[in-house]
Amino acid sequence: MSAQQRTEIASMGEFGLIEHLTRNFETRNASTVLSVGDDAAVIDHFGKQTVITTDLLLEGVHFDLMYTPLKHLGYKAVTVNLSDIYAMNAIPTQITLSIGISNRFSVEALNEFYEGVYLACEKYDVDLVGGDTSASQKGFVISVTAIGEVAPDRFVKRSTAKNGDLICVSGDLGGAYLGLTLMEREKKIFLENPAIQPDLENETYIVGRLLKPEPRKDIVNFLAEQGIVPTSMMDVSDGLSSEILHICKQSELGCRIYEEKLPIAEDSRKAAFKFGLDATVCALNGGEDYELLFTMKQEDYDKITLNEEISVIGYMTAQEEGSKLLTKGGNIFDITAQGWNAFQQ
Amino acid sequence: MSAQQRTEIASMGEFGLIEHLTRNFETRNASTVLSVGDDAAVIDHFGKQTVITTDLLLEGVHFDLMYTPLKHLGYKAVTVNLSDIYAMNAIPTQITLSIGISNRFSVEALNEFYEGVYLACEKYDVDLVGGDTSASQKGFVISVTAIGEVAPDRFVKRSTAKNGDLICVSGDLGGAYLGLTLMEREKKIFLENPAIQPDLENETYIVGRLLKPEPRKDIVNFLAEQGIVPTSMMDVSDGLSSEILHICKQSELGCRIYEEKLPIAEDSRKAAFKFGLDATVCALNGGEDYELLFTMKQEDYDKITLNEEISVIGYMTAQEEGSKLLTKGGNIFDITAQGWNAFQQ
Repeated sequence: MSAQQRTEIASMGEFGLIEHLTRNFETRNASTVLSVGDDAAVIDHFGKQTVITTDLLLEGVHFDLMYTPLKHLGYKAVTVNLSDIYAMNAIPTQITLSIGISNRFSVEALNEFYEGVYLACEKYDVDLVGGDTSASQKGFVISVTAIGEVAPDRFVKRSTAKNGDLICVSGDLGGAYLGLTLMEREKKIFLENPAIQPDLENETYIVGRLLKPEPRKDIVNFLAEQGIVPTSMMDVSDGLSSEILHICKQSELGCRIYEEKLPIAEDSRKAAFKFGLDATVCALNGGEDYELLFTMKQEDYDKITLNEEISVIGYMTAQEEGSKLLTKGGNIFDITAQGWNAFQQ
Repeated sequence: MSAQQRTEIASMGEFGLIEHLTRNFETRNASTVLSVGDDAAVIDHFGKQTVITTDLLLEGVHFDLMYTPLKHLGYKAVTVNLSDIYAMNAIPTQITLSIGISNRFSVEALNEFYEGVYLACEKYDVDLVGGDTSASQKGFVISVTAIGEVAPDRFVKRSTAKNGDLICVSGDLGGAYLGLTLMEREKKIFLENPAIQPDLENETYIVGRLLKPEPRKDIVNFLAEQGIVPTSMMDVSDGLSSEILHICKQSELGCRIYEEKLPIAEDSRKAAFKFGLDATVCALNGGEDYELLFTMKQEDYDKITLNEEISVIGYMTAQEEGSKLLTKGGNIFDITAQGWNAFQQ
């Protein structure tokens, strides 16, 4: 919060605040019939199916304002929801945004947050159509619901992978977790000695992966262009291990993943080495990469080979064969979900 | 929380918890194509328009667990959102529900909350199609998004009232505010002396108005049966004064409201007298009644006279004439929004 001017939220009132925050926002989807300012928004989806997802982001649980710029937070609050819509093979069209804020926030701080929200809406062509603004006793609370559309029955579930299908993942994995590790380390150093400035200079890649995730609209478009309908798909928010086990369980199958095929960025490898972490473990268990994990028929393989943003990392097997990782050294391990589980400490 | 058994949430894990909480829930709308368990739900709305609304409920701001049974809270979290859908003249079909919970909640406590959620879903024929379950550092956080459908262009906005239209309200007003006043008073007495048991015996009406609001599906159905399309409509969540001013502002009109026409239940009048409050002020400024406020053409008047659940309380005027209350004593006052404004203390 680098706000130089400080306008107290109390000086605007709730409705004044909503008007202020939504004043420059024009809708861009023809399906947006009625937007902010009534009991509910109206969306027209003739001839399409509507997809809906929602996420709750809580300060201290999902984000730390000490190292999360509000503009990035607004951007990320939107994009993580869009990621869920793309993961259904659908196109996002609208979002609603509810926030709970304590009076330690100024209007300028909220403006920064909304700048990020609007930036994401513009980049991904979605309309902000409603929400709720509320006081919070403690902590910043963000709830986003995203709506998307898909041609009838073209949505892709988690439960429909087939034995023998190739397992693919977009982009690279583990970067966001390494960014989080770096930020938590720098925060600790800062709290111990506020005179030491954070050293993030060579770490822009992993920091960006954490603070400004981009949902893979490009992959959904590419698959459509190539005529590929994935047999199953989901986004990687809790970590690859956790996600592939969801697909296995819901599709009643097993899988083989090859360690050597896991896509890991060079910057992530360097950071992992620096922090004394295993890059493979970061790629398997680190969350928040918001890449797409999908399965497809083997005969579609030729269509994706030229896309450097898609890696084939293994294949689906019968359920009895289990869910296994084949390491570079030739060992075979069971894949276990080490993903985020905030209830277990 | 009268739970005798206590199961720690940590013993189930996040996904186990979601499966547990949604295990008995069957979808009942044909438009629900895909429900809980994937990245997003899929809703089919061919030939209808989709309406969407969202509300955030925060412990300590919107509810007090000291006097709010969790089952009632779950019920209310759903019904207040459905009220917004009905206020658009639409029929709710699906909801998503996200919660943030601290580990002071047991699985039994959450079950109670979900019992209320499911009860409301059953009563109003909506499907719970998704959501997000998260840890919270402090306080219970609830975010509900409701989706509804309406025949093309039959939705009713706030901005389309016309000069001369009748102003109508369903049910009665002020009861929820009086229920809140009672509960806050009993809480204070209890905190001062825990040996004194709360005295709610003769106050079931106002307590019910606060803890278990029912959205006015019946009114929307009645209007449809009578062939009445309201010229504007919204629900009364912040208080009648605040809501009628929204309609006036958005429709660029004024209004006349008659104090003697305000519907106030006998139990509310008695409670107001007991607490030394003015029942009219409670009806004008008390929030959370979740009744429908709507305007309609004068020629529709005959169609509603037999419905005892609808009161005509005034009429719309030109904007220059202002927004006025005519009291029983013959005085004229400006209507001012005294509704909930949590940012001003």
